Amino acid sequence: MTTSDAYQRGKAMAEATNPGIEAALAARYDAILPGFSTTMMEVAFGHYYTRDGLYDKTRYLATVAALAALGGQTGPQLKVHIRNALRSGATQREVAEVINQMALYGGFPAMINALNAALEVFEGEEADT
Amino acid sequence: MTTSDAYQRGKAMAEATNPGIEAALAARYDAILPGFSTTMMEVAFGHYYTRDGLYDKTRYLATVAALAALGGQTGPQLKVHIRNALRSGATQREVAEVINQMALYGGFPAMINALNAALEVFEGEEADT
Amino acid sequence: MTTSDAYQRGKAMAEATNPGIEAALAARYDAILPGFSTTMMEVAFGHYYTRDGLYDKTRYLATVAALAALGGQTGPQLKVHIRNALRSGATQREVAEVINQMALYGGFPAMINALNAALEVFEGEEADT
Amino acid sequence: MTTSDAYQRGKAMAEATNPGIEAALAARYDAILPGFSTTMMEVAFGHYYTRDGLYDKTRYLATVAALAALGGQTGPQLKVHIRNALRSGATQREVAEVINQMALYGGFPAMINALNAALEVFEGEEADT
Amino acid sequence: MTTSDAYQRGKAMAEATNPGIEAALAARYDAILPGFSTTMMEVAFGHYYTRDGLYDKTRYLATVAALAALGGQTGPQLKVHIRNALRSGATQREVAEVINQMALYGGFPAMINALNAALEVFEGEEADT
Amino acid sequence: MTTSDAYQRGKAMAEATNPGIEAALAARYDAILPGFSTTMMEVAFGHYYTRDGLYDKTRYLATVAALAALGGQTGPQLKVHIRNALRSGATQREVAEVINQMALYGGFPAMINALNAALEVFEGEEADT
Repeated sequence: MTTSDAYQRGKAMAEATNPGIEAALAARYDAILPGFSTTMMEVAFGHYYTRDGLYDKTRYLATVAALAALGGQTGPQLKVHIRNALRSGATQREVAEVINQMALYGGFPAMINALNAALEVFEGEEADT
Repeated sequence: MTTSDAYQRGKAMAEATNPGIEAALAARYDAILPGFSTTMMEVAFGHYYTRDGLYDKTRYLATVAALAALGGQTGPQLKVHIRNALRSGATQREVAEVINQMALYGGFPAMINALNAALEVFEGEEADT
Repeated sequence: MTTSDAYQRGKAMAEATNPGIEAALAARYDAILPGFSTTMMEVAFGHYYTRDGLYDKTRYLATVAALAALGGQTGPQLKVHIRNALRSGATQREVAEVINQMALYGGFPAMINALNAALEVFEGEEADT
Repeated sequence: MTTSDAYQRGKAMAEATNPGIEAALAARYDAILPGFSTTMMEVAFGHYYTRDGLYDKTRYLATVAALAALGGQTGPQLKVHIRNALRSGATQREVAEVINQMALYGGFPAMINALNAALEVFEGEEADT
Repeated sequence: MTTSDAYQRGKAMAEATNPGIEAALAARYDAILPGFSTTMMEVAFGHYYTRDGLYDKTRYLATVAALAALGGQTGPQLKVHIRNALRSGATQREVAEVINQMALYGGFPAMINALNAALEVFEGEEADT
Repeated sequence: MTTSDAYQRGKAMAEATNPGIEAALAARYDAILPGFSTTMMEVAFGHYYTRDGLYDKTRYLATVAALAALGGQTGPQLKVHIRNALRSGATQREVAEVINQMALYGGFPAMINALNAALEVFEGEEADT
């Protein structure tokens, strides 16, 4: 499968934040879905996460907002993007404020559940310091 | 009904962006839901929109993200917050990029439908220039 | 197709509130989905709407709550059940209060959109008086 | 932060059903979100849970309906409101009937999952008797 | 409660795939919801799962698609229908391809979470071989 | 922007079913989102619609299922994929049966609304005959 420059860009960013991620995805999914790992690099990271036009911090805070408002659908992914937001320069306060705002769109249960996920991430990040 | 300083803050911000909004809400809803207009000022604007801790532009881009990802639920409100984001200093490009990112969380139909709503707002805003 | 006593109960209730409904459903859907109209009578009305154990008014207010919180998914059906609630003895105030409460679970846009639908029903009902 | 009479009403009701709740919320969230605990008292309890116009039992059954239909989004909150409904005079049968009705709006998986949550609450409540 | 031929058809299919299912449902739910187990046989299995007009394999793959796209709402039910699809002649590859397609409609988190559920089912099925 | 063989495959399929689609997307969106049209070809069509492993008819019926169950989020896209399913060899009956099944997962309102959309497509298709 030939790939595009979106793939190159996406692969570089994915490996920088998650060394070995493409190989891990390939090991887990490519047997049942040929090319899945390449798709994740080219599509999610290449066509979306590495686009210009938005500061990474804003992109990740927007993602946190959506995943918080969507509630139960987002399980582990919300925590990943909370970490991404913090590493892009968002403060814990900014992450919490974005989640808090989501009470108005996803409801209060979704907001509290997302806030609790954020607190877990914050504790983990502080432990790593 | 006595109100809090959250009410004062909220009312001031609401009227600055939408002159006469409290009276309009009162005229439409307070007969069937006593105190509804006061609640909107104190709760939505006071306790949420006028909080510190987040730039208005980021707050509105996060809101646009959530409403785009939530899809059909958000009807007219998405356009209101796209306008709010533009008036807080977001560029049309930033608004579009945030919505585009939502393809990954709310699906491609939700993203395209929100992008089309944004294009309508952009045309309206340019017409006002 | 033989039917159950659930069908009998459901058919009776459906026709009492919507004379000719089974024939209308049959005319519209049974060609493409054999037995669809019978299913609606036996399943929706027979197995659900005519169950004991809950006052009709409470059943319909619960339905209005769910449809309001679910937001965009529920289109015309919300208005049908607002009317059902009113005809089961709920006041306009009670219907509005239930919808208003849904701001906390389905978000404020879903709540306002449902409240606007309720106001349309109330105006229609008053016109019929 | 000054507060409104909605705060007073909300605080009184919250503490009556959950002694120490405001302090618990403050301890957990106010560091990262200043004023969060006050907001919960004034907004959720004051502006919504203590409104007139609806019997508590009906308000809580409507809430149970919405949380059941919304499915996975509502995690622990559904159980809280099932308990609130029971303590407001709803029978276990009425709670179960409301959840059962949600099969038609949130789908059968959401309904069964909510029913299982209700059974857990019922067992807990009976253990407390 | 008299039942229809939908009940007979549904009961036969349900017991063939899940021996003792009606009795198990009755033991768990009929005390709190009279007739619940009969309803499940007549409605879910009788009126829906045993309809003509669609190959079982296609019906179950469509179900897997919907449950994957709906994300968090569907918990245990997704795995049940993945098994049903495999037993109706779908390959693991076909199940995975259907879930993968759902990235475009339910978002990438919903898709990955459903894919992980499928992998668990596949491991279980292989262990049974 | 260099593109991958996924782009080639996707572009070919998109243009075969919708001649001029890439240019139309570029005209509408590329000014505000550089590369958007290329992304749609490479991502949606290339990485998803042209994958092996599933008959087109099954892929489109699965898509119709998800969009029907998701309800209000899917607006115009549901009709596009109903047409795609018919053109891939699905009968109107099969499309209707898939949508009907979604009553169990997305609720009866979502199902009826999707069925009505299907009837509109069927009438349009027959008019073209």
